[in-house]
Order: sequence, then C-alpha cells, then structure tokens
Amino acid sequence: MPDKVRIALDTMGGDHGPSVTVLGAEVSLERHSNIEFILFGDRALVEPLLEARPRLKAASRFVHTEVSVGMDEKPSQALRHGRWKSSMWLAIDAVKKHDADVAVSAGNTGALMAMAKVALRTLPGIDRPAIAGFFPTLKGESVMLDLGANVQCDADNLVQFAVMGNVFARTVLGVVSPTMGLLNVGSEDMKGHEALREASALLREFKLPGSFHGFVEGDDIAKGTVDVVVTDGFTGNVALKSIEGTAKLYAEFMRATFRSSFLSKLGYLLARPALNALRLRTDPRRYNGAIFMGLNGIAIKSHGGTDGEGFAHAIDVGVDLVIHGFNDKVKQEFSRFEGSRNGGDSAPTLPPTAPIGIEQPQ
Amino acid sequence: MPDKVRIALDTMGGDHGPSVTVLGAEVSLERHSNIEFILFGDRALVEPLLEARPRLKAASRFVHTEVSVGMDEKPSQALRHGRWKSSMWLAIDAVKKHDADVAVSAGNTGALMAMAKVALRTLPGIDRPAIAGFFPTLKGESVMLDLGANVQCDADNLVQFAVMGNVFARTVLGVVSPTMGLLNVGSEDMKGHEALREASALLREFKLPGSFHGFVEGDDIAKGTVDVVVTDGFTGNVALKSIEGTAKLYAEFMRATFRSSFLSKLGYLLARPALNALRLRTDPRRYNGAIFMGLNGIAIKSHGGTDGEGFAHAIDVGVDLVIHGFNDKVKQEFSRFEGSRNGGDSAPTLPPTAPIGIEQPQ
Repeated sequence: MPDKVRIALDTMGGDHGPSVTVLGAEVSLERHSNIEFILFGDRALVEPLLEARPRLKAASRFVHTEVSVGMDEKPSQALRHGRWKSSMWLAIDAVKKHDADVAVSAGNTGALMAMAKVALRTLPGIDRPAIAGFFPTLKGESVMLDLGANVQCDADNLVQFAVMGNVFARTVLGVVSPTMGLLNVGSEDMKGHEALREASALLREFKLPGSFHGFVEGDDIAKGTVDVVVTDGFTGNVALKSIEGTAKLYAEFMRATFRSSFLSKLGYLLARPALNALRLRTDPRRYNGAIFMGLNGIAIKSHGGTDGEGFAHAIDVGVDLVIHGFNDKVKQEFSRFEGSRNGGDSAPTLPPTAPIGIEQPQ
Repeated sequence: MPDKVRIALDTMGGDHGPSVTVLGAEVSLERHSNIEFILFGDRALVEPLLEARPRLKAASRFVHTEVSVGMDEKPSQALRHGRWKSSMWLAIDAVKKHDADVAVSAGNTGALMAMAKVALRTLPGIDRPAIAGFFPTLKGESVMLDLGANVQCDADNLVQFAVMGNVFARTVLGVVSPTMGLLNVGSEDMKGHEALREASALLREFKLPGSFHGFVEGDDIAKGTVDVVVTDGFTGNVALKSIEGTAKLYAEFMRATFRSSFLSKLGYLLARPALNALRLRTDPRRYNGAIFMGLNGIAIKSHGGTDGEGFAHAIDVGVDLVIHGFNDKVKQEFSRFEGSRNGGDSAPTLPPTAPIGIEQPQ
C-alpha cells in the first residue's frame, strides 16, 4: 500500500467551483491524512479558501490556471480550448506525468472523458474505457458499468467491462467472490442483442474470479442479484438515472406523506432517528464519484451539483482505488484473462490495442 | 361510446390461472356493468369458479379449451403448439373475428405478442406494434413505450410509437395537450444513437397534438417531465424494471426502518393512515396492464404474478381503451400524420379528443 495518495484536483469543475471542491478536499483530508493534493484553479478563488484552511494548505500544492472548461462545452470544443492550460486538463496531465495517482473533477463529463482518453490512453487489452458507479442495493452494494462512455458496445467491450467491474468489486467493495451479470431484457439465453449473447458465451468460457450469473434484468439492479452489472453506456446511463429519479420520487412522496396530517407529523417525529439512519444509508452523496476505468491512470467524476461532503466522497473513491492498487490489478487480470483466452495459461501476449480517442484535437 | 365492452379473457394465463383471472373479471364487472366476457379456459377449473359467481356467470360466455400456453414456452413453440386451440390464441382470435373488443391475458408476454402479431397484424401506417405502460410520476401519470416488443428500433418505429403514445395520453390519461420526449443519455441534440436523432428531427417537423419536448433522460421518467416517453423496447424494458426494482427497494427499506425501534413502530402507527394513502397511490396493481398497441385490435398483458385486484385493473385498462375508441383514434391520427408527412396539409382535422374520466361506469 502506498504511503501517500496523490490527488490532482480540478477545483474549477462543478456547479459551485472551488467553494465546494476545496471544502471537499478538506473533508476528505480529515478522513485520509495521507493525501497530498495538487489543486488546479483560479488563484483569486482558490487561495482565499486555502488560507482559511491551514491543514489543507499544508497538504497541497497549488497551481494557478487561467482556463476553466464550461459545464456545457462540447468535448471537442473543450479539447480545443482547454487543452494544455485548463484546470481539468492539467489535473489529468498530472496523472499522466505520474505527479498524481488520481484526478478528480466535478466538471463536464464528456470533456473529462475526452481529455482522459487523449492524455491517458487505454490500458493494454482494453479497447475502450468505461464509467463505473456503485450504489446501495437490498443486499449491500453493487457496481455497474458502463454508465455512459460508450453508446454502443460490442461483446469484447462488455467482457472487458466485466473484468474491470470484477476487480472493482474484489477491491473497493471487498467482495471476495463477486457475481457478475449482463443487463438484458430477460434471463433466457436467446434474449437481447447479439453483442450480449456473444459476451455471455465469452464470460461463461473464460473464468473470472467469482461467478458469472448470466443475464439480469432492470429490477435485479436494486435487488443486488449480482455484485457487478455489465452493460453498454446507453442502457447503463438510462438505468442509473431511472433509479436516481425513482429514489427522488419516493423521497418526495414520503415527505408529502409525513406532512399530510397532524398524526403523520407526530409519527415522523417519533420515527425520525430511524428515518435519519435510512436517509444516511441511501444518501446519494455517499455514492458520488463515477470512476473512469480502463485508462493508464484513474480519473473520478463527481456529480456537478454536489456539496462538499459529496465531493469528499468522490475523492475518497479515488483514495480507495489507489490504496487497493486497482489499476495494477486490472492489468494483472487482463494478462491472465487474455492469456487464457489465447489458449496459453498466462502470458501477456496481447498486441497493443490501437490508441483511440473520441475527438483528436488540432 | 359503445353500449357494451366485450372482453375476451385467457383465464389460464399467469402464475395462478383461473383463481386470479376469474376473480379479476368479477371485480372489474362490479366497476363496469357493461362488460360482456368470453372466458376461455379449462372447464374443470373455471366452471366451479363461475358457479360461485352468478353475476359474472350471467355476463359471461364460457368456451372450454384443452390447451394452455406455458409461462416459459418460447413464442415460436407456443405458436406451434397453442395456435387454433389454446385459451390465449382463442382470446386473441375472438378480437380478430370481432367477437370481442379486447383480449386480456396474464400469460407469457412473448407468446402473447407473437400470437397477437400473427392474428391481428399491424394497423395501416404502423410497421411494428409496441408495448406501452403507464405509471405514477411526481406530476401525475405518464405513459412509456416500447417496453419490450422491439429490441432494436429505427427512427420510423420511434415516431410511430410517439403517435400512439400521444393518442393514449389524450384519451386514457386525459391530457389535452401531451408533451412527448425521446429517452436518451443527454438532452443535447448530438447525443445518443442515429435513430434517436433522426426521430427527434421528424417529431419536430411533423406536428402532433401537444408538444415535442426533445430528448429526456432516465430521471425525467419519474419526474414526469413529459406525458409520453418514447424509447426502443430494450431501453424501455430496462428502465421500467429498474424503476420497479427501486420502488420495491424503497418499500423494503421503509418497512425495515419502521420496524427498527419501539419509537419508530409507534411513529408508523400514527402515520399509518397517511402511509396507507401513499401505498394506495403507488400500488403497482393500479398500474397493471401493459397495452399492445399498433395492431388491428387491442391486447392487454397483465403481470403474471398479480392478484385479482391487479388483474381487474388490467381488464379496466382494456375497457378504457374501448370506451375511448383508442384504435380508431390511432388510425385517424396516422392518416392525418401520414398526410402531413407526404406534403399534403390535408388532415381530417381531428376534433380534440374529449378527455374522459379514467373510469366510465355503466
């Protein structure tokens, strides 16, 4: 385990910029005294916040940046205008240069992914990076990927996502033998797209640690039927947001219910400690921090609208990944996996994957 | 409005067969005394249930069938073995022969859709039927389609679904000017698949009653951002089941919360009337009944595991569709829509559909 975890922060990202990101850094540092920060952002905004936080200041190196990537900028536009000099680019570049272990940003997802792909490139054996997130289920916690990096995926992409999700479950979620499932519209073999059926056959054939459950359906996500839910980025994004929307709807229904009469208000007061415990358990801030997986370096994307506590959780996810040596374990798993796939029983025989990159600027 | 609504029931479908479906028929008949049933099923099972329900018996014609379609039969298998003689086929065939207005079954979805397609064929202007369902949102109720009939859809399919959803919202949901959205992974024009972008352009061009909102995301479903959510059957199925799973997860979390201490149990007792009202509002049985749209005749698919009350709701949906002349309005809308699409502004300008109350008794 590394002595220090070095986090590169894009302090300018998100709806609230440094007022949230610097606060988040302070909160996370209280939980992990071994963090060293490199903070990229506008001096006028960040320095006063740092002055007021001597402990954070002592653990941080500050780098002034003139440019911020807008929340609505298209990825291609952000790459043209923000490359080399924006707080977002420099945070990722610090990971590329091995000055930091993880980059964390609450900025524009598309721009962050485009920059991460261009700067970090995919790991050997991985054709495309994925966005992963974890969330509470009836049984505990599960991880789902891809949540939006790839609108269309072939069977190889899905299998690669399964490998990465498997490593995530075994490390960060602490599941010794993770179960994995492919998100589909039915559990029978003939259901869904060709890519899903092919990926299912591949995952049955190549043994990953844990077990492959087969196809799962939308309701299996919240049930926690499997620890790792594998899907293309379109479906994963819609599923995750459908779940978030429903959780908010129910919270709103409950609020209205408890407000609806004198007795129900009184009932709420009595049940409040238990309800607060539930609120804590399902607090979306606890699950903030989507992980960009499959690159030579880790980037974490925080929700743009979160607060300091939520942003701290996104940093915590990065710390966890570094402590567990996530990327090294992914690399190991890929050489093992690809070895078995190529008929050998080990051997990192893979040809280097063609470098990609959504948008190749200038 | 028709004097009578003629419902053909596959009494053998579902996890519990006639014990649930016949009970459901009785419950629905109490709400709609103008129903005439044709009940298809096994005499040994159905007749004793009918004997015990003289009012239902008087409103029903019973037809003995030897064959039932199994819940796990593949559609092709069900067509081979259940065509001409199963309770499911005969219920649909009664609609085809104009002996009934609607067929209702709690049986195997794939088999029911396959039989409905073979027997009823698609309406003029519609390439593929869709499965639609409606559900509670923060603002009221919305309809979503397709929920699983078509794993892949092109732009024309999506536009046709939008037209049918629009008619459903204006009739059954009683929304005078429905808003429509295409489910996507972002609201920007460049997001998602080609088919979505093309469908979006088409829906902007060809004016349907109400307004086209553009792309919506997963969390917009529960928010009720639009009255009609249009999507392909793969995404719609995953989204709907993700929502159902999350709703169940929250119900389970709430149960555990109220049981967790003496005070919270007491709080529950005080808030019980309000919580019961909420339970009623979000009761999945109230939203039971997926509609097969786009065929020359209506088929309703009930959840296989529902009870009599839930099955009655599925019948009620069928009654609503008949009362509102749903299929005729879809046909009218298509001739108007196709007219405007072919350059004419022809249009037998539709009289605004009168929003009728969801339940039209006697």
